Amino acid sequence: MRRNVLTVDEYVNGIKANNRAILARAITLVESNADRHFTLAQDVLTSIMSATGQSIRIGITGVPGAGKSTFIEALGVMLADKGHKVAVLAIDPSSSISQGSILGDKTRMDQLSRHPNAFVRPSPSGGTLGGVARKTRESLLLCEAAGYDIIIVETVGVGQSEITVRSMVDCFLVLMLTGAGDELQGMKKGIMEMVDIMLINKADGKNKIIAEKAKLEFERIVHMLPKTTEGWQTAVRAVSSIEGTGIKESWDTVEQFCKHMKETNQFQARRKEQAANWFHSLLEEQILKNFYENKEIQRTLPQLKQEVVNGDISATLAAITLLTKYNQDSGQH
Amino acid sequence: MRRNVLTVDEYVNGIKANNRAILARAITLVESNADRHFTLAQDVLTSIMSATGQSIRIGITGVPGAGKSTFIEALGVMLADKGHKVAVLAIDPSSSISQGSILGDKTRMDQLSRHPNAFVRPSPSGGTLGGVARKTRESLLLCEAAGYDIIIVETVGVGQSEITVRSMVDCFLVLMLTGAGDELQGMKKGIMEMVDIMLINKADGKNKIIAEKAKLEFERIVHMLPKTTEGWQTAVRAVSSIEGTGIKESWDTVEQFCKHMKETNQFQARRKEQAANWFHSLLEEQILKNFYENKEIQRTLPQLKQEVVNGDISATLAAITLLTKYNQDSGQH
Repeated sequence: MRRNVLTVDEYVNGIKANNRAILARAITLVESNADRHFTLAQDVLTSIMSATGQSIRIGITGVPGAGKSTFIEALGVMLADKGHKVAVLAIDPSSSISQGSILGDKTRMDQLSRHPNAFVRPSPSGGTLGGVARKTRESLLLCEAAGYDIIIVETVGVGQSEITVRSMVDCFLVLMLTGAGDELQGMKKGIMEMVDIMLINKADGKNKIIAEKAKLEFERIVHMLPKTTEGWQTAVRAVSSIEGTGIKESWDTVEQFCKHMKETNQFQARRKEQAANWFHSLLEEQILKNFYENKEIQRTLPQLKQEVVNGDISATLAAITLLTKYNQDSGQH
Repeated sequence: MRRNVLTVDEYVNGIKANNRAILARAITLVESNADRHFTLAQDVLTSIMSATGQSIRIGITGVPGAGKSTFIEALGVMLADKGHKVAVLAIDPSSSISQGSILGDKTRMDQLSRHPNAFVRPSPSGGTLGGVARKTRESLLLCEAAGYDIIIVETVGVGQSEITVRSMVDCFLVLMLTGAGDELQGMKKGIMEMVDIMLINKADGKNKIIAEKAKLEFERIVHMLPKTTEGWQTAVRAVSSIEGTGIKESWDTVEQFCKHMKETNQFQARRKEQAANWFHSLLEEQILKNFYENKEIQRTLPQLKQEVVNGDISATLAAITLLTKYNQDSGQH
């Protein structure tokens, strides 16, 4: 018999005892869009906040087909076997549209999912990227409170999702495919500037030589580009999830990176900055949502915007007109 | 005798007749932070909107010392001599702090300033980047209404100013210096993704060979990076403002770029998108300003933010707490 609602204490004690069923239910609570779940979820979060922050937070991105799941499974199993407690979360903005989701396929990460030291959670579906991001951040905190010391956040890299994942992790990895000549043309703009470690995947079989060549080429390029993290040269590694090569080296590089971040006092500083940014973006998202959902604004904005786009009125005049309407309308309740 | 205030008609007629003194006064009006000037400025803008949009809008950035002024002067004089009407505006966020400003030095662009076909205006000083951006955009419209068919917006590249300039121009150029080996390390993050044309400046004297070598190197890199504009490979040119070489080729490249943009229907599409984005950013900047300037918010925000940064409460709870306060406070007037 599963009761529909646990108390705050039941959630908190269950999470802290690493009761995986209760952790999963707490994440479901955090993911719920129902108003009645919101206060309870926030009460649970408030109670576990002091038990958070002790993990290493890793972000992993890469185009579909780059082999993210296979790599995360290989890395996760290696770490879990060593005694680490590994949680895998995902952000997939496309799941809002398709209702499918990365990690949603039950057969994926099968070995890792069944590992006693691992916890794998599919991407929350539905809602805006901002909403999904909030849910993933809060799920990450719940996993930390449950004692997971390595949290991996995966994203498929649609839209702004890399920026979102980057904003909640300590170390950001991109998984690259190689083969063709113009390696970077398939990359999304801006990705090079977010990445701490670049992994050339599928460096196996007859692809091995090509991957090693691509590695050298990427090393040359990252050396010339502005640095992502002060004092850290974006590292490039070749890996094969199938042959199991490069997985340990990749993790060693993550640890080197974290060591560098801690020694240079950037580790906590980045987290504090991330927390402050998160707070402001939540706040500002909601303020703007209130504005754009105002009925008077919805009635008048499209026409004014069209006039601006057509060059009929100045953007300033259009903006002031709308704001005046909004302030009058807000003052009226 | 200079009257303090012209009528809307006097401004509009003066601008349309390309009366440079009246154009200059209209820009001063647009730049004014005084409330009493605001309505008048917007009335003038509304009246000239139908006469805008006919120029080619060029953005130029580069680190201090890259030779922006010298290059713009060489390019501007060449174009003005050919019969073009050239206006040069500037965005310099540092001028808010230092009260100095790029183009502010009277001796700069001396030859271009005195050219009958040119109009050179220093950066408006004071105010936020958002405020300066609005002033420059509106000044650009005034220059277009006055018949300037080439508008060059210069920025020194501090903070977010390149993004700001990029958002108001058709074609964006970066002026690079060369000499050392790691050419890109001195570049700001993200700049490569905004640039349509890259100019290696000071390709003169004994620096000529180094500049040509850097040109080849950059061509290789831009070929590998994601494209800034669909169907356009970021062009790289070596120029010498002193020897006058590469200036004509640079302009030919700008024209090729604009031709490509027009043929692929990206030219007007980008402008419409820029206008819509500008409108939304003005609007959202003001909405958020109203929020952050609210007394109740100013009283409670710092403490809550600190608790979020310290990990004492969740960002969501802090944001909701503030929004509830704000809505109560707004409802009270």
